[in-house]
Amino acid sequence: MNRLDHTHDPKLKSWIASANEGSDFPIQNLPIGIFSYKDAEPRGGVRIGDKVFDIFAGFASGLFPGQAAEAAEAASQKTLNTFLGLGQGARSALRNRLSELFAVGATDKGKVEKCLHDLGDVTLHVPAQIGDYTDFYVGIHHATNVGKLFRPDNPLLPNYKYVPIGYHGRASSIRPSGVATRRPMGQLKSPDAEMPRHAATERLDYELELGVWLGPGNAQGEPIAIGEAAASVAGFCLLNDWSARDIQAWEYQPLGPFLSKSFGSTISPWIITPEALAPFRIAQPKRPEGDPAPLPYLSDETDQREGAFDIELEVLLLTPTMRDKGLPPHRLSLSNTRHMYWTVAQMVTHHTVNGCNLQPGDFLGSGTISAPDRSGFGSILEATEGGKHPIELVTGEVRRFLEDGDEIILQARGRRDGYVTIGFGECRSTILPAKR
Amino acid sequence: MNRLDHTHDPKLKSWIASANEGSDFPIQNLPIGIFSYKDAEPRGGVRIGDKVFDIFAGFASGLFPGQAAEAAEAASQKTLNTFLGLGQGARSALRNRLSELFAVGATDKGKVEKCLHDLGDVTLHVPAQIGDYTDFYVGIHHATNVGKLFRPDNPLLPNYKYVPIGYHGRASSIRPSGVATRRPMGQLKSPDAEMPRHAATERLDYELELGVWLGPGNAQGEPIAIGEAAASVAGFCLLNDWSARDIQAWEYQPLGPFLSKSFGSTISPWIITPEALAPFRIAQPKRPEGDPAPLPYLSDETDQREGAFDIELEVLLLTPTMRDKGLPPHRLSLSNTRHMYWTVAQMVTHHTVNGCNLQPGDFLGSGTISAPDRSGFGSILEATEGGKHPIELVTGEVRRFLEDGDEIILQARGRRDGYVTIGFGECRSTILPAKR
Repeated sequence: MNRLDHTHDPKLKSWIASANEGSDFPIQNLPIGIFSYKDAEPRGGVRIGDKVFDIFAGFASGLFPGQAAEAAEAASQKTLNTFLGLGQGARSALRNRLSELFAVGATDKGKVEKCLHDLGDVTLHVPAQIGDYTDFYVGIHHATNVGKLFRPDNPLLPNYKYVPIGYHGRASSIRPSGVATRRPMGQLKSPDAEMPRHAATERLDYELELGVWLGPGNAQGEPIAIGEAAASVAGFCLLNDWSARDIQAWEYQPLGPFLSKSFGSTISPWIITPEALAPFRIAQPKRPEGDPAPLPYLSDETDQREGAFDIELEVLLLTPTMRDKGLPPHRLSLSNTRHMYWTVAQMVTHHTVNGCNLQPGDFLGSGTISAPDRSGFGSILEATEGGKHPIELVTGEVRRFLEDGDEIILQARGRRDGYVTIGFGECRSTILPAKR
Repeated sequence: MNRLDHTHDPKLKSWIASANEGSDFPIQNLPIGIFSYKDAEPRGGVRIGDKVFDIFAGFASGLFPGQAAEAAEAASQKTLNTFLGLGQGARSALRNRLSELFAVGATDKGKVEKCLHDLGDVTLHVPAQIGDYTDFYVGIHHATNVGKLFRPDNPLLPNYKYVPIGYHGRASSIRPSGVATRRPMGQLKSPDAEMPRHAATERLDYELELGVWLGPGNAQGEPIAIGEAAASVAGFCLLNDWSARDIQAWEYQPLGPFLSKSFGSTISPWIITPEALAPFRIAQPKRPEGDPAPLPYLSDETDQREGAFDIELEVLLLTPTMRDKGLPPHRLSLSNTRHMYWTVAQMVTHHTVNGCNLQPGDFLGSGTISAPDRSGFGSILEATEGGKHPIELVTGEVRRFLEDGDEIILQARGRRDGYVTIGFGECRSTILPAKR
């Protein structure tokens, strides 16, 4: 899996200047998304620097031979489901050809130029029709922190170290970065109140998650073995799983979170491929002394050796006051995908152990990924201990939970000596006041 | 809403003889589904007696004028999502025209005959591409029975009588009646074991539910008011929400059921319209003395007057031995939709109170609907009190949970003096042994 090739070469530069200037999208990245330009139908595009390459236009100009053409044709549809379903071979063929086309000295530069749009001229969309969305809970420090708020002596439930805990999420309300998020109404019940009331949430929170796009799936009744699971993963993005903590506390027993999450989730629009992230694969962090080994169906040597990722994850907050004063956003958190207790392959295999069928374009969330200490907590619930210790900002403002007008920005990047840094782009959304 | 018209007239008979002989599908029913014939693409069909009417063929022969034509054209696609999104006006126009075409004395009988298939010649499919599937928990006797197994003194949680509890389910693994269900593998942990094991479920169960097909939805951020909610419902079916109780017990804390349900759910393939069920609407059963009133956003006079249904629900079991001996199936349960604590309109409105967007073709389950006494419990978990009191069958067999080869058959019917009985057809599936 962990194939490093010429497309990762740090000496590789693009003739598109903005790709070489510390962009999240150098020639070593080449993520795919869905964009629309003016009134045209949405279709697949590749991000490079501050440009978006129109895959269909490139396909129509004959820029893609063989398997790359198959991939480009699939990526020319309104959604990327078909493309995602093709799997690694076609995806790599497209990547290899794109790398040639964008590299300094490319012979087809003239043709390529005609297929480029300025990022500012296009609209980005959710890149696939999401059949089902599943949210996991693999950030062990998050699970521990949240557990502590309820059970100080026994924060982690007994199943946590055996089961990659997950639950079904709402697919329809997933939106791309840039779309605002309305503060939800719902049922809230104060601990001392006799009954609940219908009101806007007073405990609005973000959650810092890694998003996973599924590629080739499985037939119903046919589990995906752990050794095959990485091949089912088509790419990654950032996910802000907005949460209303007061709605959640009142509704979640006994069937889990529902309306506290389903009002909206925000994702970064570019699908960062497993190929682009190959340099940032790492061995699974050792489980703490005394933790049980995963059951055999979740255990695979290759997955142990390279199934985890070293990717920095960051949460930034921009308040209306900061925006007015032209101040930069405040960093709420710096975390890392190293803090996932289970790998993505373990999530996929566990998801299908019962025969549940995954389909191309299905979407997984990792669950909130918190670092062990407060500077890397992935939700404000954890950072303020349920609102008890407010965050103080340079403007003199304080935050126990999020306020109307606040903007949350997630970012991520793979960084490794000897390789070019790969970014995920932004996952950002501003909170609108509730409609009462 | 509760409009009774000539299409409900009990004197109305069809020239299709099988529709008049106590079929689930008399001329007063006219449900829509998706069928395929030989190698042709799946498309919309109407069930009448033991025939399936090809809607596209009828449309192409010019059988539908005006708004009925719009509905028929929408129902000629591969899935019914577009048709479901049209709403009540178009649906009723199609119903009215179908009622004319199938009635004794119809002038277009010759044309209609050319559009009919024998049921045995077609394959039935899941009728829509389900965007999201949400399962509720509105069967209060079920919630109480299951709660008692865990908390004998306090079976219902404090939120139950305020919140129509629901959670997201898995859409990809929903299959039509007739498709077998494979016993799932998963993690099981016996109470006395130190750690879980990877094995086939030993506590396989059915759940008797009403399924709800969503019609016109709502934009994200725009809740559906309780007075408008009934207009968002396009129809009904039966749902068997298969459950693996041992997997569920070990996995469900803290985020709710996941793999214990997602291996497969079985639905009856025909969408029974709100128009067909108009005679069986009833007032919401009075809440027991001392129960709180619903919060105002869940309260509507029309919904109180006619938002509930009087529909019999039945569970039958056919074991391999019964099948071999030619014995009829054993009735496990006779329940009724009267035992729903919340109406479908309350479920819809609660689902959108936070701005969550519903879409045509989304699917809701009611949750298990148990009657107050054992003869109407909607799951074997309740009927045997978690396996403690086995069910004895005429063959001498006993069942604590379901065994390989067992077939579960759900049926439903609306019955009311002065009206023709309307059936839902069957929701049936046989259990295949686990793949180890």
